[in-house]
Amino acid sequence: MREVAVIGVGMNKWGELWEKSLRTIFVEAALEAIEDAGVDRLDSVYVGAMSPGLFIAQEHISSLLADYLGKIPVPVARVESACCSGGLAVRQGFIEVASGMSDMVLVSGVEKMTDVTGNEATFTLGTASDQEYEGYHGITFPGLYSLMAVAHMHRYGTTREQLAMVAVKNHENGSKNPLAQFPFKVTVQGVLNSVLVADPLRILDCSPISDGAAAMVLCSVETAKRLKKPYVKIIGSGMATDTIALSSRKDLTWMESTHVAAQKALEMAGKKVTDIDLFEVHDCFTIAEIMVTEALGLVDKGKGGKAVEDGLTALGGKFPVNPSGGLKAKGHPVGATGVAQGVEVVKQLRGEAKERQVKGAKRGLTQNMGGTGGSCVVHVFEAA
Amino acid sequence: MREVAVIGVGMNKWGELWEKSLRTIFVEAALEAIEDAGVDRLDSVYVGAMSPGLFIAQEHISSLLADYLGKIPVPVARVESACCSGGLAVRQGFIEVASGMSDMVLVSGVEKMTDVTGNEATFTLGTASDQEYEGYHGITFPGLYSLMAVAHMHRYGTTREQLAMVAVKNHENGSKNPLAQFPFKVTVQGVLNSVLVADPLRILDCSPISDGAAAMVLCSVETAKRLKKPYVKIIGSGMATDTIALSSRKDLTWMESTHVAAQKALEMAGKKVTDIDLFEVHDCFTIAEIMVTEALGLVDKGKGGKAVEDGLTALGGKFPVNPSGGLKAKGHPVGATGVAQGVEVVKQLRGEAKERQVKGAKRGLTQNMGGTGGSCVVHVFEAA
Repeated sequence: MREVAVIGVGMNKWGELWEKSLRTIFVEAALEAIEDAGVDRLDSVYVGAMSPGLFIAQEHISSLLADYLGKIPVPVARVESACCSGGLAVRQGFIEVASGMSDMVLVSGVEKMTDVTGNEATFTLGTASDQEYEGYHGITFPGLYSLMAVAHMHRYGTTREQLAMVAVKNHENGSKNPLAQFPFKVTVQGVLNSVLVADPLRILDCSPISDGAAAMVLCSVETAKRLKKPYVKIIGSGMATDTIALSSRKDLTWMESTHVAAQKALEMAGKKVTDIDLFEVHDCFTIAEIMVTEALGLVDKGKGGKAVEDGLTALGGKFPVNPSGGLKAKGHPVGATGVAQGVEVVKQLRGEAKERQVKGAKRGLTQNMGGTGGSCVVHVFEAA
Repeated sequence: MREVAVIGVGMNKWGELWEKSLRTIFVEAALEAIEDAGVDRLDSVYVGAMSPGLFIAQEHISSLLADYLGKIPVPVARVESACCSGGLAVRQGFIEVASGMSDMVLVSGVEKMTDVTGNEATFTLGTASDQEYEGYHGITFPGLYSLMAVAHMHRYGTTREQLAMVAVKNHENGSKNPLAQFPFKVTVQGVLNSVLVADPLRILDCSPISDGAAAMVLCSVETAKRLKKPYVKIIGSGMATDTIALSSRKDLTWMESTHVAAQKALEMAGKKVTDIDLFEVHDCFTIAEIMVTEALGLVDKGKGGKAVEDGLTALGGKFPVNPSGGLKAKGHPVGATGVAQGVEVVKQLRGEAKERQVKGAKRGLTQNMGGTGGSCVVHVFEAA
């Protein structure tokens, strides 16, 4: 297998982009990545999208996006694994470049979530759960994560305030990210006073409904050197699955798919988690980030709440988590999220993250998961 | 890149399987392929599915299927490119094995299309067209293919009877396939007298709405030899895109994505189309098979109708097309179709196709396309 490099990144301003359609949002991010890479050809394209079928009644975006990017007849594969569709797109592009099958691959993610009415967005997100055993009985995603939150609080003494501190930290970081959907700061009291969604989770514990896209251009390290492009290497990729239904899990307070995917990615990279300088993780709800920091091994089981309280995961802390603002502040256009995590890590490793720069960062890790952790993709990036 | 082998295949009886859910159908086919391969581990799984979101309100089937196959935490990627989602799953598995990333990969496809009411299936299939420029104006897939049929008849003199002969041939072949959804024979007169769907296409020109799954186990040729398994090689893979909207095409009577994908696959295989002994192609409508035989180069432009009339594409003809019965008689559970094409070719190259065996077949080609040809995947298989 060949070594893989990222030579270009692109991401548009995320938000409720009512004046733009999916194809427009995608093309904006893709063209930015292509321009950043300075390449004039693509051998292959991957696009992560969770549910353009339910959100905008459009499948077959492989053809649609090749068309609107002006790249016909380039091969395009749409990949889906719910909320880690973007991470999966990065992984498939990594495999294709590593294989030698293609040399210049665009990996991208896009979701258009706000062209819906009523509770359609909540329903569509619910299709990431087990429809026959969870969805049809009426539980939503905030409901599923609230079960995990209650279990974690009960077993480990994690506090309602510690959950809020995740939101406070990520909005603090997000306030330094001009592409974030919600670049404002929040306070612990503000989170505690916000609207209740599914006890104990409140609206400011939840990532938003967003439109957005992100893209990266991958090629072999050999090609990046030949093109004399500044590049970042992808040195590890791991994916794992878990039961789709929460009720089938051995332990409601543990993200096993994250644990396994991270072990695989770190093993491929030949690194330990303590070798990593920053982490972009899947904080779809505040409790998720706490559980993920435990599953990644940044802290012991049950210590994720204490970690955020102690500032361990803050921008200046030992393990900076979500310097971009995370899903919480940056937004969560589902299919784009996993790719945008990579975009942030690449910007950090190039030293281009400005106010939110992690000083001297040499390695970063992305963790992107689907549903309640039924699937997870982890990548390890390293500065060249 | 390593050489890739198929060491196991599985497919269930297709039809309106109201008593079985998507997960059940998938597991049946997957277990059959695993048993046929005689392997006890999988490094990775690909599953092609067009729209479980719209058909059964279930996304995230990566997690669901790993779970129900009892293979957690195996990495699973769902891939989608409308009606060539299955072919895309084969391609991605091929790349992963070729890369050396994984050694034992299950490639599969599944669709559960009959759990719907009213015109929901037609609507869902319509999401493979350009929703903003085609779907929202009310055109359906039979409507789009009828435009191509009329153009082909007008330009080349293709007759209504020649369209019917495609159905007659494929049902004749399908009557020899115990897994086919509609294993009955039809006559030219029967097709001409069947219900009109979209002039000139009648119900017996159209592939059906189906439930079904198919699967194959891929590994490196080196591993297949070490396991002393009988195997078939995949020696070429090509994918190409075209405009999603029919109105953007240069020529309504030509399948450019099929032409390009086939050229790429044959180039990788180092073969000419005349080196191929049988073809499994995407006859979603009778006109589609006629256009595909032209795009593959089996006959000159405009001669596809004449080819079926002359028996060139019959089971005993020079270029046997769709010995399995094709989508027309075998059924078309969208995501499964492209994988089932591979299953048929493997059975033919192993000499296990019984009454529908193409004598002495050494090489087979699969052609699977999305929408009106907005995407296409072609593979070339060779007996070991």
